[in-house]
Amino acid sequence: MINGERTIERPLRWGMIGGGRTGQVGYKHRTGALRDGTYQLIAGAFDLDAERGRDFGTKLGVADDRCYATYQDLIAGEAGREDGVEVVSIATPNFTHFEITKACLEAGLHVICEKPLFFTVAECDEVAALAASKGLIVGVTYGFTGHPLVHQMAAMVAKGMLGEIRIVDMAYTHGFNSGDDDSADAVKWRTNPKTAGPTFVLGDIGTHLYYLSEVVLPHLKVAKLLCDRTAFIPSRAPLEDHATVLMHYDNGARGRLWVSSVDAGNMGSQRYRFVGSKASVAWSDTHPDQLVYQVQGEPERILHHGMPYLEDESLACDRMGALHTEGLGDSWANIYLWIAEAIDAAERDDEAFLKNHHYPGIAAGTEGVRWLETCVRSADAGSAWVDFE
Amino acid sequence: MINGERTIERPLRWGMIGGGRTGQVGYKHRTGALRDGTYQLIAGAFDLDAERGRDFGTKLGVADDRCYATYQDLIAGEAGREDGVEVVSIATPNFTHFEITKACLEAGLHVICEKPLFFTVAECDEVAALAASKGLIVGVTYGFTGHPLVHQMAAMVAKGMLGEIRIVDMAYTHGFNSGDDDSADAVKWRTNPKTAGPTFVLGDIGTHLYYLSEVVLPHLKVAKLLCDRTAFIPSRAPLEDHATVLMHYDNGARGRLWVSSVDAGNMGSQRYRFVGSKASVAWSDTHPDQLVYQVQGEPERILHHGMPYLEDESLACDRMGALHTEGLGDSWANIYLWIAEAIDAAERDDEAFLKNHHYPGIAAGTEGVRWLETCVRSADAGSAWVDFE
Amino acid sequence: MINGERTIERPLRWGMIGGGRTGQVGYKHRTGALRDGTYQLIAGAFDLDAERGRDFGTKLGVADDRCYATYQDLIAGEAGREDGVEVVSIATPNFTHFEITKACLEAGLHVICEKPLFFTVAECDEVAALAASKGLIVGVTYGFTGHPLVHQMAAMVAKGMLGEIRIVDMAYTHGFNSGDDDSADAVKWRTNPKTAGPTFVLGDIGTHLYYLSEVVLPHLKVAKLLCDRTAFIPSRAPLEDHATVLMHYDNGARGRLWVSSVDAGNMGSQRYRFVGSKASVAWSDTHPDQLVYQVQGEPERILHHGMPYLEDESLACDRMGALHTEGLGDSWANIYLWIAEAIDAAERDDEAFLKNHHYPGIAAGTEGVRWLETCVRSADAGSAWVDFE
Amino acid sequence: MINGERTIERPLRWGMIGGGRTGQVGYKHRTGALRDGTYQLIAGAFDLDAERGRDFGTKLGVADDRCYATYQDLIAGEAGREDGVEVVSIATPNFTHFEITKACLEAGLHVICEKPLFFTVAECDEVAALAASKGLIVGVTYGFTGHPLVHQMAAMVAKGMLGEIRIVDMAYTHGFNSGDDDSADAVKWRTNPKTAGPTFVLGDIGTHLYYLSEVVLPHLKVAKLLCDRTAFIPSRAPLEDHATVLMHYDNGARGRLWVSSVDAGNMGSQRYRFVGSKASVAWSDTHPDQLVYQVQGEPERILHHGMPYLEDESLACDRMGALHTEGLGDSWANIYLWIAEAIDAAERDDEAFLKNHHYPGIAAGTEGVRWLETCVRSADAGSAWVDFE
Ligand SMILES: NC(=O)c1ccc[n+]([C@@H]2O[C@H](COP(=O)([O-])OP(=O)(O)OC[C@H]3O[C@@H](n4cnc5c(N)ncnc54)[C@H](O)[C@@H]3O)[C@@H](O)[C@H]2O)c1
Ligand SMILES: NC(=O)c1ccc[n+]([C@@H]2O[C@H](COP(=O)([O-])OP(=O)(O)OC[C@H]3O[C@@H](n4cnc5c(N)ncnc54)[C@H](O)[C@@H]3O)[C@@H](O)[C@H]2O)c1
Ligand SMILES: NC(=O)c1ccc[n+]([C@@H]2O[C@H](COP(=O)([O-])OP(=O)(O)OC[C@H]3O[C@@H](n4cnc5c(N)ncnc54)[C@H](O)[C@@H]3O)[C@@H](O)[C@H]2O)c1
Ligand SMILES: NC(=O)c1ccc[n+]([C@@H]2O[C@H](COP(=O)([O-])OP(=O)(O)OC[C@H]3O[C@@H](n4cnc5c(N)ncnc54)[C@H](O)[C@@H]3O)[C@@H](O)[C@H]2O)c1
Repeated sequence: MINGERTIERPLRWGMIGGGRTGQVGYKHRTGALRDGTYQLIAGAFDLDAERGRDFGTKLGVADDRCYATYQDLIAGEAGREDGVEVVSIATPNFTHFEITKACLEAGLHVICEKPLFFTVAECDEVAALAASKGLIVGVTYGFTGHPLVHQMAAMVAKGMLGEIRIVDMAYTHGFNSGDDDSADAVKWRTNPKTAGPTFVLGDIGTHLYYLSEVVLPHLKVAKLLCDRTAFIPSRAPLEDHATVLMHYDNGARGRLWVSSVDAGNMGSQRYRFVGSKASVAWSDTHPDQLVYQVQGEPERILHHGMPYLEDESLACDRMGALHTEGLGDSWANIYLWIAEAIDAAERDDEAFLKNHHYPGIAAGTEGVRWLETCVRSADAGSAWVDFE
Repeated sequence: MINGERTIERPLRWGMIGGGRTGQVGYKHRTGALRDGTYQLIAGAFDLDAERGRDFGTKLGVADDRCYATYQDLIAGEAGREDGVEVVSIATPNFTHFEITKACLEAGLHVICEKPLFFTVAECDEVAALAASKGLIVGVTYGFTGHPLVHQMAAMVAKGMLGEIRIVDMAYTHGFNSGDDDSADAVKWRTNPKTAGPTFVLGDIGTHLYYLSEVVLPHLKVAKLLCDRTAFIPSRAPLEDHATVLMHYDNGARGRLWVSSVDAGNMGSQRYRFVGSKASVAWSDTHPDQLVYQVQGEPERILHHGMPYLEDESLACDRMGALHTEGLGDSWANIYLWIAEAIDAAERDDEAFLKNHHYPGIAAGTEGVRWLETCVRSADAGSAWVDFE
Repeated sequence: MINGERTIERPLRWGMIGGGRTGQVGYKHRTGALRDGTYQLIAGAFDLDAERGRDFGTKLGVADDRCYATYQDLIAGEAGREDGVEVVSIATPNFTHFEITKACLEAGLHVICEKPLFFTVAECDEVAALAASKGLIVGVTYGFTGHPLVHQMAAMVAKGMLGEIRIVDMAYTHGFNSGDDDSADAVKWRTNPKTAGPTFVLGDIGTHLYYLSEVVLPHLKVAKLLCDRTAFIPSRAPLEDHATVLMHYDNGARGRLWVSSVDAGNMGSQRYRFVGSKASVAWSDTHPDQLVYQVQGEPERILHHGMPYLEDESLACDRMGALHTEGLGDSWANIYLWIAEAIDAAERDDEAFLKNHHYPGIAAGTEGVRWLETCVRSADAGSAWVDFE
Repeated sequence: MINGERTIERPLRWGMIGGGRTGQVGYKHRTGALRDGTYQLIAGAFDLDAERGRDFGTKLGVADDRCYATYQDLIAGEAGREDGVEVVSIATPNFTHFEITKACLEAGLHVICEKPLFFTVAECDEVAALAASKGLIVGVTYGFTGHPLVHQMAAMVAKGMLGEIRIVDMAYTHGFNSGDDDSADAVKWRTNPKTAGPTFVLGDIGTHLYYLSEVVLPHLKVAKLLCDRTAFIPSRAPLEDHATVLMHYDNGARGRLWVSSVDAGNMGSQRYRFVGSKASVAWSDTHPDQLVYQVQGEPERILHHGMPYLEDESLACDRMGALHTEGLGDSWANIYLWIAEAIDAAERDDEAFLKNHHYPGIAAGTEGVRWLETCVRSADAGSAWVDFE
């Protein structure tokens, strides 16, 4: 049970790049970071529009002179200060992640970056090496994996309650791009390979599915996959607004994954089903407080967050307690907390802690990019099976 | 609204082959056929065990001397009578369908046969020709397509309420074969290619999905497909207990279909989602009285069977009226009624009626087998894309 | 598992009074009675409009000369025949039930009558005495209590799985009378005390709730109750379109019951919740195939009809088997079957069978009327508490 | 859309009384208050156990010397400081609310107090007068009414989308006190009239229902009510663990409300249904992001939070945006924000703002206590109807 008690010595001095007034994801970062007193927002380059960014930042309580016009200014301006930022979150369009991350790391700052992390695995590897050499943390905001019942699923799988895993079924679909008007700010860059990278929906929403499956099934590895992607709105090609991925895991399990932004009217968001030889679990981020657990031949069970019958791993990250709903903000708060703990440990050179500490870091970010690269490789080969390397 | 009033002149004289006391599907035939006074059960070869079949038949009210030991006896015995059967339902394991159907047609009987109809398209074509030459009907008991809301979906698609169809998502999964004990009567023959034919779950449950999609989307044709099948219980190979099929339709739509009998604990049965450029509909046979209709950008709508706002095609086949649940038996009753009307028209040589009358007949049965053949072809080619011919 | 095998020697010769082409409930009687070959429909006085009734009856397969103009004609006409009807169902407006039932019993016919049975307990007692003296059965079509999961609840309560019963919560509400147009045939008589009796929604739908609670909780007796009723459409007064009833049971349990036909837009129909000191069960006729079972401190459980883990009492009356939906027609089929078995036993003077055989009979019909009388007594006393005698 | 931008000049200096490490509700206060940078937690008397309170407070980031042993110490200690607290939240057992509130107000502090506010209306009036005389705000943490869809319902009612209100149906039930062990800290004081006040579940959870109905239906007033309460665990008497309240509103509408802590296994928490002459809305805090809207004769509609089709009042307080879940913490954040805005206006003597500003204040707290007093009056009169004055 998380109660707001600080698990690290003092709040981290935190800055944001992007996530401005009109940005979609910025509030999620702030509501996540500011929950437990582990981060203090003291600087930002919030917006491409510097004036709007400054106005916004001051409304967030950031001092006027620490609302910077560009991320370069932020790095430079904070570098000179005793009380300068230690960690920076990057909530800007995909194509800027690599450049900004490198610059921050080089300036000695820890980084919390949005997904999809970068465009290529090569970029990931370069950044991983850089971060390692500097002793800095790179966190990735796979924001849905802080929900306590995700960790319940992982614990149940680990205990063998499902038996041998056979089937992985995942979907993240919505219909907000059913029409062909891509002129909105947050859509324009997503549908252009220059700014979005090699994928649209696979990277935009599919990486959430893939990472969550890694959290629940850490021992399973994809052996080969097939990706069938298409753009129902032709102007989006070569990027896709709809894709299906089939996966064969190394233990013989089969996976299927569906992502779409033209699934007209769907408000169901993410759906996960993990099937084992004995039982299954099913979870959706839409109703994150409940988990369906089905043992073949027994009544279906619905587990509720915060209840004493849950595994310790789940109760440990519960915030509201049974009967009281948790939302996406609570999940992000956990992610930010875990990253803060990693940063704190890195600062203390506490290798032992870091070894056993779970948070979405550079490895998880890299795996996501590797999966995207493989999907594109398959799609480009005519939606053919390709090995996952 | 169906009220029990007979739409044909008199009840058809009906016999059953298979569907005995221990058979899984027999009661569905009887509850469907006997609902509206359109069929009278007067003869049967219900069981491989002749004695049990006779005992069972008499308990159903069939005269002792018309409970036959074999289907050959039934055909012979009834042939000699003024009041002999006119139509026979076949509810036996798959491998017997072809032989029994041919024998019945040759004896001048209409046939209502279980799915999957036969093992090969060649067999289907042969039977189609035979039936046509004799002026006889072959109905196929795709028993889920009698539900009124299936016809609501079809009418909505036809009226363009969904826009251009883009995505077809279907699944029929359960977990009753999660374990490896295949010794039960109804499982043994299903997991053996000699008795089941070229597929297990694809034919056993997948054909229901495929046929229902044809009812809802008659204008869409599969252009190519890819089938990935596996047997999690190795003794079932080369047959599959789990399969995923990806489909490309001729209009560019994408389909995915999942069938499994090792989806441990799943009681959700069938799920359908048809997505268009404007809106989607979603339906499950588990809650057949409600239909989810989602127009992008508008509140989700849930439509209930029997309500005046539905399309005429749906209200026409409603039986219980709004607020009162319909079950699978009501759906079967519609299927049997529609087949009776076809038989009646065939007897009256009413070509005009038959032209516009919708029921699952030999063409639908053949398409199901063609789809299975194509799935196997793809699977055998290493789960590769193959054209649908 | 019910398989269609006849549990009585031969089909009963059956007639219907009311339930004509435009009647709301007639099809439910026929679909229930004709399911298992236990009834044969051979006569009827289906309609106030004799001509329409005759036309309708012949379309149901009844011989022209046995489609009578009035129930008196039916009784007279059938009396003279060797093969005359033995049992008659009454599906006419409430005010006719008493007169028709008496006439049929006096003519030596078993009766299956709609609810609410009569207007007064005194009438019920008179009919009960008459039926007893003649050795005839009076069944009452509380058609929702044939669902297998209703009997699952009863069995669970009986086994003590819920602990001591504390709370009974029931509702049957819809909004079909939200507007003030009461001109439709089936509404006009319902909103007039001359034809409906002392209540509208309490009798029309409330009696279903009350009877089902008796089936599940046979050992609980209402000690006192309070009824608060109102007519939101004033022209319906003194009858009610909305009522709440509070009940104190003799064991200290508390009940509340809500009926309304002005619950605008509600398609949820009936909801039941039975709470004990250890656990609760909840069921709705809208999704009759599933039962929610909640043990305090454990995950919620959802039980599905037809599954082997259910109690014998539930499996015994299952028709479709697990995964395949049952509807209201299946429930009615069970009710009709149980009444047929009672009639058969009465004909055989099998007192022992009748003693242990459960079906909704004259006692259940009488209890319903007693409950209505008590509700009206409370309402008339200013919605005050009154003893249930 | 709330984005974290401060709507008041600077964060309020905030202290907490109660809500310590073991307290149930403390985290909800902190997660609500600390979300938008409108409060800064700088002092506290968190716990009856002073040492544990101090340890806890410092872990929350409060300076050691501002973690006080008692609320009296807090008032005294902060009074002396330039930077002393301006507003204090009271999250202690009910019996302490009155005394602590008065002391804080007398010390010139704004107060945010838990519900049920006090034991009697007389106490409420006394405090209201005191607060008014000092120009101070008293907020009450009816924490569920910050959910955006609550305000959607209110806006729909106000626009007449439901027609004239007829029926109010509310329930808040759980089963956590099904057993008879009341020894847990947070249960012990709740089941004792000395510490809980005149009610247990009516005050503990029923006041949430009643206040939310006031938010949605501000124009409806209760004219009379009847309360039937009982203690299934006898040691809880005279307090109740289960109660039903019937209400007649001044416009003729009927209400019913159910509260229970012995509803074994129920995880559904709160359910609301508001029925009008044309349509209904239904909402549960368990799935706060969706609202069922049912127009009689039309398909049911499900509205999702954050969607553009919602009313402005709802979108104005949305935090996460469509598809992303909000939880109880987001609702509390809104409540705390609105109270902060009231305090800020009070500090600025901005009467005009306060006149139109909606937040749960002393009037709402008083109404809740008045409702409880009336319920007890009814119950004590033998569950009789009493006027609501
Ligand atoms: N983790 C999640 O759940 C989640 C959700 C949404 C978006 N995202 C990711 O977050 C990132 C941002 O997405 P979005 O939807 O918020 O985009 P957006 O277009 O809505 O907002 C981008 C914001 O970044 C600012 N910005 C752009 N370039 C900048 C620069 N060079 N310097 C400073 N500020 C700059 C813009 O002014 C704007 O405020 C993307 O990588 C996206 O994939 C993640
Ligand atoms: N339409 C549907 O929804 C549905 C559902 C279940 C089964 N089926 C199909 O129905 C058929 C039967 O399946 P089932 O599950 O009932 O099988 P089953 O093994 O449970 O029952 C088969 C029945 O046929 C009898 N039988 C076998 N061979 C016979 C013969 N030569 N002559 C007479 N009787 C014979 C058996 O004695 C038994 O009563 C299969 O083709 C299956 O695919 C369809
Ligand atoms: N058990 C249930 O679930 C259920 C459901 C609906 C109605 N009911 C009950 O069924 C009864 C009929 O209700 P309904 O809604 O079908 O009414 P309705 O008005 O729709 O139909 C009544 C039918 O009875 C016929 N009829 C009327 N008087 C007759 C007479 N004297 N002789 C012969 N026929 C006559 C009418 O022509 C019509 O066909 C009522 O008692 C009602 O309470 C029960
Ligand atoms: N708004 C809501 O949703 C909600 C939810 C739960 C509780 N509550 C209300 O909150 C209040 C507290 O309930 P709870 O369940 O947290 O109780 P609790 O018994 O769990 O916790 C009470 C806390 O207050 C502290 N405390 C008690 N007396 C104190 C005093 N004199 N000075 C300082 N600290 C003191 C205790 O040490 C403990 O930390 C009650 O009035 C209750 O009705 C409201």
